[in-house]
Amino acid sequence: MLRKIGRDLPKIQRFASFAVEKPPRDASLVTSPDQLRPFAQRIWSDVREFINEECIPLEQKFLAQEFSEDRWKVLPEMDELKAKAKSAGLWNLFVPYNIDENMEYGRGLTNLEYAFMAEEMGRCLLGSEPFNCSPPDTGNMEVLIKYGTEDQKKQWLTPLLEGKIRSCFGMTEIAVASSDATNIESSIVSDGDDYVINGRKWWTSMSLHPNCELCIFMGKTDFNASRHLQQSMILVPMNTPGMKIIRPLTCYGNFDAPGGHAEVDFSDVRVPKENLLVGEGMGFAIAQGRLGPGRIHHCMRLIGNCERSIELMKERLRNRVAFGKKLSDQGVWKERVGLSRVETDQARLMTLLAAHKMDTVGAKVAAKEIAMIKIIAPNVAQKVVDRAIQAHGAGGMSSDFLSPHS
Amino acid sequence: MLRKIGRDLPKIQRFASFAVEKPPRDASLVTSPDQLRPFAQRIWSDVREFINEECIPLEQKFLAQEFSEDRWKVLPEMDELKAKAKSAGLWNLFVPYNIDENMEYGRGLTNLEYAFMAEEMGRCLLGSEPFNCSPPDTGNMEVLIKYGTEDQKKQWLTPLLEGKIRSCFGMTEIAVASSDATNIESSIVSDGDDYVINGRKWWTSMSLHPNCELCIFMGKTDFNASRHLQQSMILVPMNTPGMKIIRPLTCYGNFDAPGGHAEVDFSDVRVPKENLLVGEGMGFAIAQGRLGPGRIHHCMRLIGNCERSIELMKERLRNRVAFGKKLSDQGVWKERVGLSRVETDQARLMTLLAAHKMDTVGAKVAAKEIAMIKIIAPNVAQKVVDRAIQAHGAGGMSSDFLSPHS
Amino acid sequence: MLRKIGRDLPKIQRFASFAVEKPPRDASLVTSPDQLRPFAQRIWSDVREFINEECIPLEQKFLAQEFSEDRWKVLPEMDELKAKAKSAGLWNLFVPYNIDENMEYGRGLTNLEYAFMAEEMGRCLLGSEPFNCSPPDTGNMEVLIKYGTEDQKKQWLTPLLEGKIRSCFGMTEIAVASSDATNIESSIVSDGDDYVINGRKWWTSMSLHPNCELCIFMGKTDFNASRHLQQSMILVPMNTPGMKIIRPLTCYGNFDAPGGHAEVDFSDVRVPKENLLVGEGMGFAIAQGRLGPGRIHHCMRLIGNCERSIELMKERLRNRVAFGKKLSDQGVWKERVGLSRVETDQARLMTLLAAHKMDTVGAKVAAKEIAMIKIIAPNVAQKVVDRAIQAHGAGGMSSDFLSPHS
Amino acid sequence: MLRKIGRDLPKIQRFASFAVEKPPRDASLVTSPDQLRPFAQRIWSDVREFINEECIPLEQKFLAQEFSEDRWKVLPEMDELKAKAKSAGLWNLFVPYNIDENMEYGRGLTNLEYAFMAEEMGRCLLGSEPFNCSPPDTGNMEVLIKYGTEDQKKQWLTPLLEGKIRSCFGMTEIAVASSDATNIESSIVSDGDDYVINGRKWWTSMSLHPNCELCIFMGKTDFNASRHLQQSMILVPMNTPGMKIIRPLTCYGNFDAPGGHAEVDFSDVRVPKENLLVGEGMGFAIAQGRLGPGRIHHCMRLIGNCERSIELMKERLRNRVAFGKKLSDQGVWKERVGLSRVETDQARLMTLLAAHKMDTVGAKVAAKEIAMIKIIAPNVAQKVVDRAIQAHGAGGMSSDFLSPHS
Repeated sequence: MLRKIGRDLPKIQRFASFAVEKPPRDASLVTSPDQLRPFAQRIWSDVREFINEECIPLEQKFLAQEFSEDRWKVLPEMDELKAKAKSAGLWNLFVPYNIDENMEYGRGLTNLEYAFMAEEMGRCLLGSEPFNCSPPDTGNMEVLIKYGTEDQKKQWLTPLLEGKIRSCFGMTEIAVASSDATNIESSIVSDGDDYVINGRKWWTSMSLHPNCELCIFMGKTDFNASRHLQQSMILVPMNTPGMKIIRPLTCYGNFDAPGGHAEVDFSDVRVPKENLLVGEGMGFAIAQGRLGPGRIHHCMRLIGNCERSIELMKERLRNRVAFGKKLSDQGVWKERVGLSRVETDQARLMTLLAAHKMDTVGAKVAAKEIAMIKIIAPNVAQKVVDRAIQAHGAGGMSSDFLSPHS
Repeated sequence: MLRKIGRDLPKIQRFASFAVEKPPRDASLVTSPDQLRPFAQRIWSDVREFINEECIPLEQKFLAQEFSEDRWKVLPEMDELKAKAKSAGLWNLFVPYNIDENMEYGRGLTNLEYAFMAEEMGRCLLGSEPFNCSPPDTGNMEVLIKYGTEDQKKQWLTPLLEGKIRSCFGMTEIAVASSDATNIESSIVSDGDDYVINGRKWWTSMSLHPNCELCIFMGKTDFNASRHLQQSMILVPMNTPGMKIIRPLTCYGNFDAPGGHAEVDFSDVRVPKENLLVGEGMGFAIAQGRLGPGRIHHCMRLIGNCERSIELMKERLRNRVAFGKKLSDQGVWKERVGLSRVETDQARLMTLLAAHKMDTVGAKVAAKEIAMIKIIAPNVAQKVVDRAIQAHGAGGMSSDFLSPHS
Repeated sequence: MLRKIGRDLPKIQRFASFAVEKPPRDASLVTSPDQLRPFAQRIWSDVREFINEECIPLEQKFLAQEFSEDRWKVLPEMDELKAKAKSAGLWNLFVPYNIDENMEYGRGLTNLEYAFMAEEMGRCLLGSEPFNCSPPDTGNMEVLIKYGTEDQKKQWLTPLLEGKIRSCFGMTEIAVASSDATNIESSIVSDGDDYVINGRKWWTSMSLHPNCELCIFMGKTDFNASRHLQQSMILVPMNTPGMKIIRPLTCYGNFDAPGGHAEVDFSDVRVPKENLLVGEGMGFAIAQGRLGPGRIHHCMRLIGNCERSIELMKERLRNRVAFGKKLSDQGVWKERVGLSRVETDQARLMTLLAAHKMDTVGAKVAAKEIAMIKIIAPNVAQKVVDRAIQAHGAGGMSSDFLSPHS
Repeated sequence: MLRKIGRDLPKIQRFASFAVEKPPRDASLVTSPDQLRPFAQRIWSDVREFINEECIPLEQKFLAQEFSEDRWKVLPEMDELKAKAKSAGLWNLFVPYNIDENMEYGRGLTNLEYAFMAEEMGRCLLGSEPFNCSPPDTGNMEVLIKYGTEDQKKQWLTPLLEGKIRSCFGMTEIAVASSDATNIESSIVSDGDDYVINGRKWWTSMSLHPNCELCIFMGKTDFNASRHLQQSMILVPMNTPGMKIIRPLTCYGNFDAPGGHAEVDFSDVRVPKENLLVGEGMGFAIAQGRLGPGRIHHCMRLIGNCERSIELMKERLRNRVAFGKKLSDQGVWKERVGLSRVETDQARLMTLLAAHKMDTVGAKVAAKEIAMIKIIAPNVAQKVVDRAIQAHGAGGMSSDFLSPHS
């Protein structure tokens, strides 16, 4: 299979060499992958094939490890998956064309084009890691590409882009409503050539991953500045003294291993001044820019989640007989599948529009659509996934039906 | 105002002369009127201006007549409105480019382009009549354009296109579930040079209009043919002996005057054979083709309905104080306005996609999207309109808030 | 039939003579009419029979008049209906036992017992008028029973209890959010032996009824008193100079004739001081006590509305075939009927509990349940009625299916 | 505390000695625990106190163990909790009065009375196990009380009632839709003095518990009998050769340890004929009777779940500030708490009515209400719990907020 995916890499590269250009402000909306430019279309179908043939077959093993004592180890097959995806050119797809004009970092895809890839990645439990497109690394890499110094890039961006290390983002705090970033209470205090960091973070996703080596930390350098100029971002290596993982958090009883979500304490953590990003007081601005694309990725993965749920639901309904009739022939189930299709397709259109506006008129104008998909996609996913669970009876609560029973 | 709307009619014509061409199969989706080709954009903004300046100010008068004894008369201003719209080139906009290559009948708009106009028309209670775009005439004219003989066109299509007469469509029957057209029981029996028609129809919209002169009647010419070849369509002048309006039907107590919805009896109604459309047994096929565009028009008008409701809701919320605070500053109302925006924008995207597929890949492929918008748009409208009503308190049930109180 | 309903009136009276006693504070909840004490059970089944046999057969006629020019006249049969109900002892049932210890005014029913009657009345479009249980008379009579002087009672309560006149309640104002009664702006100014009234009311229900002779008017006697002591209530005969019906309001295009809802202007309307209820500043307190029972009545009538809708829906589903199968055998419709049953039964239980608490622990403690049913019952009715409409196809929008087609 | 709960055990016993009598068919509905007879009221308040003071403080420890490698062990404190509850008379409360006239097994509570206790048990994650009221033991004990021989009772019922062993119920099969019990495919074949059992079960809850010693197994003794006479139930000790736990199943990634839900294989499992319950072909009838009370228990526990969620949600809202205002002062959250109250109270009323009908008119008549609560309670719980999660932000996904942070 891999041969097939990688079959015409040189040709793809060639396509790419003239493919990157900003879509015009009034460009119309691509609503289906076969309307993408050939270069992106090829990547999309390669990603889809890779997911179906390489990743989905590993889901049961991935889950079994997650439910076992080995959960904090990386899936043994992950390194090979990443190597394959990389060699097939399916790597760092998330880096948007507009911060990567020479395709130094990624493949020069637009936000819209990558949205279609993200949907595919959301169809599989292994997610976007095989493609080095997994959060929070994606957001962290974007930040480093846009704001990192040459030294910062060399030390952190390069290994991240190569998939050699993982990273986390220390923003949410246990004591305050951190959805409003101005509430943040952690301090970053200048002391000679260093900054000294104190604070308590939680929901620091990926911090438990064995390869996690960097935390981009958000705190306040000036509690007296105006509200949006108090925050700064700083690079903190994971092994810095004073930094301590308190505990893994659970999501409905699951650890989301091996990345997990930790509560992390920072007590007099000292890092050199050159670790600061951009400058003091720039934290809020960096954070704002960081969240938009991530929301689109999350929502498209949720759409992929819905699509997979519909696939599984339909398969079950075709194969299950109750009260003398196939479930797929029963009106209530036709209605539920129909509603799932209606809701998923609507959510996709709006998410694509958000990505498209990001590409054509910029993040600021796209803010309205991004706010809308944050409401739409999770609510739709909750409904569609719930219907798929119900279609499987008690079995829907287990993970048996992800792939054909072995 | 009219001067402004009609200001550059010759220029529009000129644009138009080279504007009609089929969008390619893989065209991407126009999601906003300012992405339309300049010709269509101009018509759209003229339609919007016409609605806002000419039609909305008449709403209260229109409603007052509807609730009075004069309801079965045409609104006195309607003829003038139609004349203005016609002279401004805002006429027969619904005729799609693909059945009107030489722009003989309409303006050569695509289904997608007209969808944007239909949304605007849906913002006003007077609807699409001023633009001669009102159902069921629109569907009837489409049928005549596509299937009418020269004689049929001359007798019926011409006055319809000129807005001189109105027409109705006799399909739904009281005795059977007519959403399945194969259930229809009315008979069209050959007798010498004539056909003799018997049956009972209801929900025959527009049949009560003083200018209604034609009924396109659907019945069975052969009860023994295969299921989809039993039906035929035939032209029946409204004054044909044996045809009798039994009564107007009410919609939640309203007559929808002056067009109304009647129960109509056909007893030995005799029309000449040349009144048959296409041929015996072609009724089902004609009906199928007739419904798709109409559904898109209906759904886009519902979107317009939602938009108007949101406008009125927001105006009310800004101007009403309760419990010591403007309603617009209260969280519950922010949430309701937000949801209305989310639902309306999603419904619009899907309806535009249906119209776009109609243009690019044809009605057959678009069937899925058309089926989806039939579910989506009415449900969204019900929710959005209900919220707007609630925002107005008891007053929301009245028609006081359609326009500024005089 | 009437003979049967009135068959044992003396016996009922006898039951009644020892039946009125306050339910203990910890009484458990009667959830079904056959658990009522025999006296109330008998009245309930008589009311039900009266509705089914005397009232429902008149619905089509009632509606036809409502949609005609005769709408502002009383239904010709109404007087006879009222006479029959009165002679059968089905009269003024709403007067609660606790303000009517000697059964001077009504039948000594509890709020809970009357709730079951109100449900039955809600099953029919003619509503509660035949039983002299129709708002706003009910609330007005309650107010007069509790707070009226002997003279006020003689002049207004007696003819109201006899069903000879109707009355309205002037509270809601066009200019302010009147759901908060402290917002009211109308003035009641002392001037010698009179009060002089100025203000503009709307949604003054029943004010258009040909027999309406009294308005209980709420306004402010002291704009400087503390918030809840500014309001007073005063009796205003409908023919008082300066009082003017401005126009009937419409509810979704209907007039709710013959009672209607009017906008009413009061300009220097002068009434003698003895028309004031209780005393200056007591208006808010009276209003608070007035609304609780009315909300229970409204909600139970809505439950009755739901029950009737379910009856009609089930009848339709049993008799309609679509796509080769009876609708009642199709899963989607089974689900919709099931949900309607579930929602209606839950709403009834909560409304009964509200009435029961009113009886056992008083209006103040019952306030929470009364607030809940205000949310529940209208929302449930909206869903159940909508499903019944859908089950009837287009016909569901008309009023054809209220009773067997004639 | 325990002293207080057990303070007047003799007095309770005395109450009880004359308290057991069947409620009359037309009894009205107790809707609040303070309307219960004093005996039941006392038990209810003791259960509530026990939950609050003994069980809730152990929740965090219980969860920590569930998420650890020790999950398959019984919580160390459980034995002591059970001993305390037993000595306080809070033991085997589920046994309904009508199968326990001499209070040989339980406390002679009605289904309605126990419903209130079950609600309290549902407020705590430890559930009903401390009170020996935990499924599937409860259903199994009921079956043994009603249908067990003296020998069967001695061997299995006695240790179950004493809380010394646990049990499971082998009904659901992996291959067929087991919600229809007639689909069951496992076989129970007579062979000399034994029955030989073959089949594959899953979702066999409690089968992994270290104390689980008995499986009540459902299979078919006669595949050719009429549909409802094919099934039989038989007692299978857990250590019987041929019976094999295949694996624990997960519920959304959790094991529900230590009871768990297993897939269990039965290959030529041989048990003596006297292990059969009642007789061949009685399995379906026994199963039908077994499910009704269990559904009420489940639903009332879900109501308790909702109540706990509302408590936690309100506490959070009072203590959290966002965007400059306490969450509890923000309209959207007032609405969400209000809806949660409305939905929970309605669900409780209907569940109580189901229990009440079970007591007064029997399981057959109560079937409609039992069917309704199966729809209502889980749907309400899903909504209420979701709102409580949202109120806690990301923290809502964790288990941190179950009890005050330590």
